[in-house]
Amino acid sequence: DFAKVDHHRSLRTGFPEAIWGPGKTPEQIVAIFRTMSERVPVALATRIEPEVFQQLQVRLPELHYHPTARICVLQTADPPQYPGAIGILTAGTVDIPVAEEAAVTAELSGFEVQRLWDVGVAGIHRLLSHRTLLDRVDVAIVVAGMEGALPSVVAGMAACPVIAVPTSVGYGTSFGGIAPLLTMLNSCATGIGVMNVDNGFGAAMLAGKILRT
Amino acid sequence: DFAKVDHHRSLRTGFPEAIWGPGKTPEQIVAIFRTMSERVPVALATRIEPEVFQQLQVRLPELHYHPTARICVLQTADPPQYPGAIGILTAGTVDIPVAEEAAVTAELSGFEVQRLWDVGVAGIHRLLSHRTLLDRVDVAIVVAGMEGALPSVVAGMAACPVIAVPTSVGYGTSFGGIAPLLTMLNSCATGIGVMNVDNGFGAAMLAGKILRT
Amino acid sequence: DFAKVDHHRSLRTGFPEAIWGPGKTPEQIVAIFRTMSERVPVALATRIEPEVFQQLQVRLPELHYHPTARICVLQTADPPQYPGAIGILTAGTVDIPVAEEAAVTAELSGFEVQRLWDVGVAGIHRLLSHRTLLDRVDVAIVVAGMEGALPSVVAGMAACPVIAVPTSVGYGTSFGGIAPLLTMLNSCATGIGVMNVDNGFGAAMLAGKILRT
Amino acid sequence: DFAKVDHHRSLRTGFPEAIWGPGKTPEQIVAIFRTMSERVPVALATRIEPEVFQQLQVRLPELHYHPTARICVLQTADPPQYPGAIGILTAGTVDIPVAEEAAVTAELSGFEVQRLWDVGVAGIHRLLSHRTLLDRVDVAIVVAGMEGALPSVVAGMAACPVIAVPTSVGYGTSFGGIAPLLTMLNSCATGIGVMNVDNGFGAAMLAGKILRT
Amino acid sequence: DFAKVDHHRSLRTGFPEAIWGPGKTPEQIVAIFRTMSERVPVALATRIEPEVFQQLQVRLPELHYHPTARICVLQTADPPQYPGAIGILTAGTVDIPVAEEAAVTAELSGFEVQRLWDVGVAGIHRLLSHRTLLDRVDVAIVVAGMEGALPSVVAGMAACPVIAVPTSVGYGTSFGGIAPLLTMLNSCATGIGVMNVDNGFGAAMLAGKILRT
Amino acid sequence: DFAKVDHHRSLRTGFPEAIWGPGKTPEQIVAIFRTMSERVPVALATRIEPEVFQQLQVRLPELHYHPTARICVLQTADPPQYPGAIGILTAGTVDIPVAEEAAVTAELSGFEVQRLWDVGVAGIHRLLSHRTLLDRVDVAIVVAGMEGALPSVVAGMAACPVIAVPTSVGYGTSFGGIAPLLTMLNSCATGIGVMNVDNGFGAAMLAGKILRT
Amino acid sequence: DFAKVDHHRSLRTGFPEAIWGPGKTPEQIVAIFRTMSERVPVALATRIEPEVFQQLQVRLPELHYHPTARICVLQTADPPQYPGAIGILTAGTVDIPVAEEAAVTAELSGFEVQRLWDVGVAGIHRLLSHRTLLDRVDVAIVVAGMEGALPSVVAGMAACPVIAVPTSVGYGTSFGGIAPLLTMLNSCATGIGVMNVDNGFGAAMLAGKILRT
Amino acid sequence: DFAKVDHHRSLRTGFPEAIWGPGKTPEQIVAIFRTMSERVPVALATRIEPEVFQQLQVRLPELHYHPTARICVLQTADPPQYPGAIGILTAGTVDIPVAEEAAVTAELSGFEVQRLWDVGVAGIHRLLSHRTLLDRVDVAIVVAGMEGALPSVVAGMAACPVIAVPTSVGYGTSFGGIAPLLTMLNSCATGIGVMNVDNGFGAAMLAGKILRT
Ligand SMILES: Nc1ncnc2c1ncn2[C@@H]1O[C@H](COP(=O)(O)O)[C@@H](O)[C@H]1O
Ligand SMILES: Nc1ncnc2c1ncn2[C@@H]1O[C@H](COP(=O)(O)O)[C@@H](O)[C@H]1O
Ligand SMILES: Nc1ncnc2c1ncn2[C@@H]1O[C@H](COP(=O)(O)O)[C@@H](O)[C@H]1O
Ligand SMILES: Nc1ncnc2c1ncn2[C@@H]1O[C@H](COP(=O)(O)O)[C@@H](O)[C@H]1O
Ligand SMILES: [Mg+2]
Ligand SMILES: [Mg+2]
Ligand SMILES: [Mg+2]
Ligand SMILES: [Mg+2]
Ligand SMILES: [Mg+2]
Ligand SMILES: [Mg+2]
Ligand SMILES: [Mg+2]
Ligand SMILES: [Mg+2]
Repeated sequence: DFAKVDHHRSLRTGFPEAIWGPGKTPEQIVAIFRTMSERVPVALATRIEPEVFQQLQVRLPELHYHPTARICVLQTADPPQYPGAIGILTAGTVDIPVAEEAAVTAELSGFEVQRLWDVGVAGIHRLLSHRTLLDRVDVAIVVAGMEGALPSVVAGMAACPVIAVPTSVGYGTSFGGIAPLLTMLNSCATGIGVMNVDNGFGAAMLAGKILRT
Repeated sequence: DFAKVDHHRSLRTGFPEAIWGPGKTPEQIVAIFRTMSERVPVALATRIEPEVFQQLQVRLPELHYHPTARICVLQTADPPQYPGAIGILTAGTVDIPVAEEAAVTAELSGFEVQRLWDVGVAGIHRLLSHRTLLDRVDVAIVVAGMEGALPSVVAGMAACPVIAVPTSVGYGTSFGGIAPLLTMLNSCATGIGVMNVDNGFGAAMLAGKILRT
Repeated sequence: DFAKVDHHRSLRTGFPEAIWGPGKTPEQIVAIFRTMSERVPVALATRIEPEVFQQLQVRLPELHYHPTARICVLQTADPPQYPGAIGILTAGTVDIPVAEEAAVTAELSGFEVQRLWDVGVAGIHRLLSHRTLLDRVDVAIVVAGMEGALPSVVAGMAACPVIAVPTSVGYGTSFGGIAPLLTMLNSCATGIGVMNVDNGFGAAMLAGKILRT
Repeated sequence: DFAKVDHHRSLRTGFPEAIWGPGKTPEQIVAIFRTMSERVPVALATRIEPEVFQQLQVRLPELHYHPTARICVLQTADPPQYPGAIGILTAGTVDIPVAEEAAVTAELSGFEVQRLWDVGVAGIHRLLSHRTLLDRVDVAIVVAGMEGALPSVVAGMAACPVIAVPTSVGYGTSFGGIAPLLTMLNSCATGIGVMNVDNGFGAAMLAGKILRT
Repeated sequence: DFAKVDHHRSLRTGFPEAIWGPGKTPEQIVAIFRTMSERVPVALATRIEPEVFQQLQVRLPELHYHPTARICVLQTADPPQYPGAIGILTAGTVDIPVAEEAAVTAELSGFEVQRLWDVGVAGIHRLLSHRTLLDRVDVAIVVAGMEGALPSVVAGMAACPVIAVPTSVGYGTSFGGIAPLLTMLNSCATGIGVMNVDNGFGAAMLAGKILRT
Repeated sequence: DFAKVDHHRSLRTGFPEAIWGPGKTPEQIVAIFRTMSERVPVALATRIEPEVFQQLQVRLPELHYHPTARICVLQTADPPQYPGAIGILTAGTVDIPVAEEAAVTAELSGFEVQRLWDVGVAGIHRLLSHRTLLDRVDVAIVVAGMEGALPSVVAGMAACPVIAVPTSVGYGTSFGGIAPLLTMLNSCATGIGVMNVDNGFGAAMLAGKILRT
Repeated sequence: DFAKVDHHRSLRTGFPEAIWGPGKTPEQIVAIFRTMSERVPVALATRIEPEVFQQLQVRLPELHYHPTARICVLQTADPPQYPGAIGILTAGTVDIPVAEEAAVTAELSGFEVQRLWDVGVAGIHRLLSHRTLLDRVDVAIVVAGMEGALPSVVAGMAACPVIAVPTSVGYGTSFGGIAPLLTMLNSCATGIGVMNVDNGFGAAMLAGKILRT
Repeated sequence: DFAKVDHHRSLRTGFPEAIWGPGKTPEQIVAIFRTMSERVPVALATRIEPEVFQQLQVRLPELHYHPTARICVLQTADPPQYPGAIGILTAGTVDIPVAEEAAVTAELSGFEVQRLWDVGVAGIHRLLSHRTLLDRVDVAIVVAGMEGALPSVVAGMAACPVIAVPTSVGYGTSFGGIAPLLTMLNSCATGIGVMNVDNGFGAAMLAGKILRT
C-alpha cells in the first residue's frame, strides 16, 4: 500500500507511466512496475544507476536499460506513434545525460527526436551552422548547464516553443544548476517554458503534451 | 540609436511587438511605438502605470490602455485570429493583474481566452466545480502567488500543457514570488513549463507559440 | 557529564524521552538510554542507521529497532494509552520514512495512528477517494517533499489542526526540503503549523501535546 | 466574479471569514464583506492600514477597526463563545502589532485571551516571574522577532502546544523575519508549530482549531 | 577629517580621482572635490542624482553634469589622451545608464569609446550585423541585465579581453542583478572578468588599466 | 504594560539603559525614558531620526540629540568614568554614522574614545601611517561596509581584541551588509568578534564589557 | 616556500602558533611544525582527523593528539600561565567537539577553563541551576547549534563578555550552522561577539586577547 | 558527435585548446585530445584527478600531468612565447592548487609567471616585504579563499590590472567560495576583474588576452 499508481493519468494523457527511482527500494520499484505493466504498454523508471539496474534485472529479466539516460523500461507492446518532431539540443558534452533522459522518454512516448549536442553560445558559429534543424522540429528542448544561455538564442531564432532544462553541470557559482535556471527564467526571448534542474524527463512529457494539443 | 527593434521576430512569429516599459523614458517608448507601427498591425507596451500612460497619450493619442493588465496598445489594423482557446486561471483575487496581462496579450495575439479567477487549492471544491473548463481549452495558463500549488492540481487533471506563472503576491517567506516559483518547478505533475515571477506577458507568448505549432 | 537528561520534560509532558542520534558515539547513546530507563517506561533514539543499531544492540540487547522509521526503543513497561487518533498522510512513497518516524513516535506515546500513503496533489482523486479518513482523526500530520502542496489541500478539507512536515525528498530546486517548507509556510489554508525538514518525531510530539490539551 | 468566497470553510470550521487586505481595491473588499455578511455573524479583514479603513468606512459605516491589530470587523451578531484560553506572549514591545492581530482574531473567534508582552530571553527573569500564565492557558502563541528564541524557552516550560510566530522586527541579518523563523524551526524544544513571518491571524486560527479538537 | 583622499592612487595610476556619491552630504562631496582639484586635472563623482547635482552646483558652479551617466565632473585642465579604443555594448535599452557611466569615465580617462546599444542575444542577428566593431576595439565592456548572456557570445567572437557588467535591470528572479552576474561568472567563454552589479565606473577603470599595461 | 524595562541588566552591568527606537511610538519611547530615568543616570535611545527627535523633545525637553549617531540621551547625572581607551576606525567616510553610534555609546558609558576615519584597505598606506593608534587603545572597534576587509588587517597588526561591525554601505552584491559580514566572519586573523550589520551600539556595549572584565 | 609563517603574530600576541589542517599534505604540516618549533614553545594544528594524526606521528613522534578537539600539539616547553578564567558552555552533547577545540586551545594558551556541557535553553532549569559558574569566569564562550539561543540567555545573565560560537550541528533549516549564527548575530542581549561556524579555536584566541588586555 | 571542438577559438586567440574534465568519460577526453592535437601544438585538460590521469595515460602515453594543478597536457610542438609577465599570488598555502592551475595554463600559453604564495592580509608585512614583485609584472592574478581580501590590497598598491580568483578554501560561512567572491566583487579598489570560484584556468586565459591586446 506504499504506492497509489495514478493510472488515471496514463489514461488522460496517453503517456507511459513513470517511476521516480531515487529513495525507493528495488522491491518497491519492481512491485510498481508489475502493477503498471498490467495496464500500459510502456512503463519506465528514471534516475536508475547501473548498480540498481542490476538488482532490478534479477527480479524482472525483461527490463531494458538505457545507460546514458539512466532509464529502465518495461515494454509489453509497441507504443503508438504520434506525428511531430522534437529537437533536443545541448550546450556542452557534459549535458548529454540529461538530454538523453529527455530523448529516450520522448521516443518511448511515440515521437521522433532530432539530437544536436555541444552547440553552446561561447562558439555561436556552431549553432548557426546547424540552424536548419530548428525549422524541421515542432518543439525544441534545450539543455544547458554553466551559464545556460543557449535557450535564449534558440528561442530568438526559432518559431516553435522552447522547453529549457538547466543542468547541474558547473562549479562554484553555478550552484548545482541555479545559475542556468535563473538565466532561463530571465530570458529576454519569448516562448520559453522552464523545467526544474536536470529534469529531462519532464521536458519530454511537456513536449509530448504540446505536440498532442 | 538606443533601440534596435527586432522586426525579424515579429516576422518569424506573427506575434505583436512588445515594449518592456520600466526604465524607459516616455520619449523612448513613443519613439519605439512609432518605429514598430510602420511594420506591424499591433504593438504593445507592458508594465505601464496609469501616470505613464497619461504622459504617453499626450504624445500618441491613438494609444489604448488596459488598466488592470497595465498594457498600452497601438493598433493600426485588426490582428489575424487563430484557432485554439487559452484557459487562464488564478489562485486568488490578488493574482488577477498578472492574469490579465496574459489575457490581454493573448487576445491581441488573436486567440480566444477563457478566464477563471480565485480557485486556489485551499478550497479545492472551487476548482472541482469548474473542471469542465479544462476540457474546453488547448493550453492552460495558471497564475498563483502565496504557496503556488494550483498548477500541480490543474496539470494532474488536464490533458493540455500548463504554463505556470508565479506571482509576487504574498508576504514573509513568499520572498516576492520565489516560494510559488519553487512550488511550480518542483511539481510532481508533468506537463508544466514555468515562467519568471509575474510574467503574464511571456506566458501568453508561449501559449501562442504552442497553439501555432 | 556530557549530557544533562531533562527528566523534568518527561514528567511535565508524559511523553517518552528521546535521544537525537547523529553525532553521538554509541557509548554516549547507551549511557543516556541507561540513565533514562531508570525513570521512564519508554525511551527512544531517532535517526539511528542500521549499522549504528547493531553497535548499540551489542551493548543493550533489549533495544528494539524500527528500520523504516530508523527509531530504537528501550521499553521497560507498557506506556499509558490516550484517547484521540492521529492521521498521518504522505504525498509520495519516498516520504514514508519520515512519516513512519512520526507514526512510531505517536504509537509509543500512546496514541492511535491511521496511515495514508502516496496521495499527493498531482493526482487529486487519490486524496478525494480517501477523504473520510480526515473526519475520523483529531489531528493530521501531512508529510510531503517535492512541491509540498498536500497540507494546503488537506487543511482546506479538514476541521482538525494540520501539522505539516516538509521532507528532503526532491532534487534541483527542492533544495533539500526548502521548497516544500516554503509552500507550507505560505499556505492560503488556515490551521497549519509547520515543522523543520524531515522532523517526523517533532510532528508526533506536537500532535501529542495537542491531543492532551 | 473576482472572488469565490469559501463559505464551505466557515461551515466546516465555525470560524469567522477573513479577507486578506493587501492588493485588493476598497471596492473589492467591501463587495466581499457584503457577500460574507449574508452568511456569517463575524467577518474580518486583516492588514488594513488606517487610510484604507477610512475609505472602507465611507462605504460600510458599520465596520469596526482595531488599529494596533490593523483588523476591520463586520459583526452582525455575537459569535459563539468556546471553552479554552489562549496565552499570547511577545519577546519585545515592537512585536505587539502581530500579537494583537492574533489576539483580536482569537477573541472574535470566541476564545479567551491572556496577553503577556516584552518577556524576551535576554532578560529571562521577566518570563520566569510570569510563568504561572503558562499553566493557566491551553495553547500558547509566542511572537518574537530579532533572534526569536522565546518559543524554545516557553515550549521547554509549558505542557501545552506552542504556536511560534516570527516577526519582521529586526535589522541586518534578521532578513525581515527569516532569522527568528529559522530559530523556531530548529528549536530543540518539542511541541512547537511554526507560522509564516508576521502571521498572527493564522496563529489564532490554528489555536482555535486545536482548542476545538 | 572625514575623508583621507588617496592621492597616491591617482599618481600611481594616472586616472581621474572619483568620489562615490551615495551616503555623503553635499558639503562632504564639495569638500572632497576641492581637495582633489588641487592635485589632479579631472575629478568626478558618480551616482549623483539630478537633485543632488543642483545642490552641488550652487556651491561649485564649475561642476559639469552628465545626466544619463549620473556623473559630475570638475575639470581644471584637459586630461592626457591615451592610445587604445574601448568598445561598450549593451544588451538592452534599459542598460544604457550603466554603460554611459562606463563611457563617460573612460572618455574622461583619455580613451576613445565606441558605443553599441541594444544588441542582446534574443535577437542574435543584431550583434552579428555589427560584429566588425569587435575587431576595432582593444577591450570590450559588455553591459547586460535580465539573463546577462551577451558577454559569453561576445567573448566567444572577440580576441580582446571582455569586461562584463551585470545590471540591476530585470524583475522577479533577476534579483536586482544577481541572475546576470551568475551568468557572467559561469560563462563557458574565456577571457571575461566580471564586475559588481551596475559598476560601470569600475569597468572603465579596469579597461584603462588594461590599455595602459 | 507594553515594556518590561530590564533594570536588572543595568545593575548587573553598570551600563546605560538603551531603547531601540524603530517601531515604537513617540509616546512609548517617552514612557520608557521616564521609567528608566528614575533608576539610572544615563538613558539613551538609538536609531532616532531627526523628525522623531523633534516629536520626543516636545514631550521631554531635557533630551539631548547626537545627529550623526542618531542617538537621544536623557542624562540626570554624570556617568562614572572608567579606565581604558577604545579605538574606533572606519574603512570609509560613509561608515561614520555607525561608528559614531558606537563612539557616543562608549563615551556615555564612561570610556575614552579615539576616532580614525576612512582608512580602508584599498589604500593601505593610510592605515600604516596611523598604526600607532593601535598601540594606544585597549580594544578596537572596526567599522566597514563594501568588502569589509579592514578588521582582518587591523587584527593582524594589533595585540588588543577587535570588534568588527559590518555596515550596510555598498550596492549590488554587498546585499545590505552581508558581504562585509561574511568577510569578517571568515577572517584569517584571530581575535575578532563580529556584530550584526550596522550594530555600532552593540559594539560599544561589548567593548565596555571587555574593558570592565 | 609554500608557507610564510607569521612569527610576528606570535611575538605580538604571546599565543601559540596554529596550523589550519584541512587541505594541507602531511608533509606540509610537518614542515610548518618544524619551522614553528624553533621559535615558540607551543605549536598546534587544528581539524586533524585521527587518520591524519597517524600520518603525522610517523614523521614527528613527539606530537600529542586531543581526539575530541581534533588538535595536534608540539610542545617544547611549558607555556606561560596567565590570570583569568574562561567559562565554556554548550547547548547540547553534540556541540562538545567544537567546545573542546576552544578548551584545549585556551589551556595551551595558559588560561584556566571551566566546562559546562548540555545546558541548552529548551530545559532552562539546567542553566539556572549552574548559574554561579557565570560569576566565577572572566569571559564566557558559548557553543550552540540547532537554534543557537543559549548565548542570548547567558549574556542576559552574566556581567562578562560572551563569545558566541555557532556549530554545524542540526539538520534541514539549520543550514550547517547558519540558523544558530543568525540567532547569535540578532541577539537582543548585549555583550556578544560572534565567531564563524564551528570556530572553537578562534573563540579561544579572542578570549585570550580579551583576558590579556 | 558528442563534442564540437571550437577550433575557431584557438585560431582567433592563439591559446591552447582546453577540455573541461569533470563529467566526461576517459574515452571522451581521449577522443577530444586526438581531434585537437591535429590542429594545435598544445592541448590541455583541467580538473583531472590522479586516478583519471592513469586511465588516460594508458590510452595516450604521450600525455604529461601536473599533479598540483591537476592539468593534463598533450604537446606536439613548442608553443610560441609572448612578452609580458604574470604575477600569481595566493593568500594562503591551501590556495596553491588553484594558483598552479593558473600558472601552468599561463606557462603553456607562452607567458612568464612569477609566483608568490601565502601573503594574505592577516599578516600584511608579508606582502609589503615582497611588494617589488608588483612592479615587475604586467598583470596580477590574486588567488584567495576565506575572507578573500588580498586582491583589494594588491589592486590598491599596483598599477597593473588585477584578476581576482576566489577559492573554495574555508568553512562555515565561506560557503564554498562565495564569501571571498563577494569580497572581490565589492572591492573599494579599482582595476579588479573577478572570476568564478576556483577558476584558475580562466584567470590565466584572461591574463593572456590582456597581455596580447
Ligand atoms: N511584461 C513583460 N514580461 C516579460 N517580458 C516582456 C514583457 N514586456 C515585454 N517583454 C519582453 O521585452 C522585450 C522588449 O524589451 P525592450 O527592447 O527593452 O523593449 C519584448 O520583446 C519582450 O520579449
Ligand atoms: N493576516 C493574514 N495572514 C495570513 N493569512 C490571512 C490573513 N488574513 C487573511 N488570510 C487568509 O487569506 C484568505 C483570504 O484571501 P483572499 O481570498 O485573497 O481574501 C483568508 O481566508 C485567510 O485564510
Ligand atoms: N542600535 C542598537 N543596535 C542594537 N541593539 C540595540 C540598539 N539600541 C538598543 N538595542 C538593544 O535593544 C534593547 C532595547 O530594546 P527595546 O526593549 O525594544 O527598547 C536594548 O536594551 C539594547 O540591548
Ligand atoms: N578549469 C577550468 N575552469 C574553467 N573553465 C574551463 C576549465 N577548463 C576548461 N574550461 C573551459 O571549458 C571549455 C571546454 O568545455 P568542454 O567543451 O565541455 O570540454 C574550455 O574551452 C574552456 O573554456
Ligand atoms: Mg564543449
Ligand atoms: Mg480568495
Ligand atoms: Mg507516488
Ligand atoms: Mg524590550
Ligand atoms: Mg531591446
Ligand atoms: Mg574614502
Ligand atoms: Mg542534550
Ligand atoms: Mg598561511
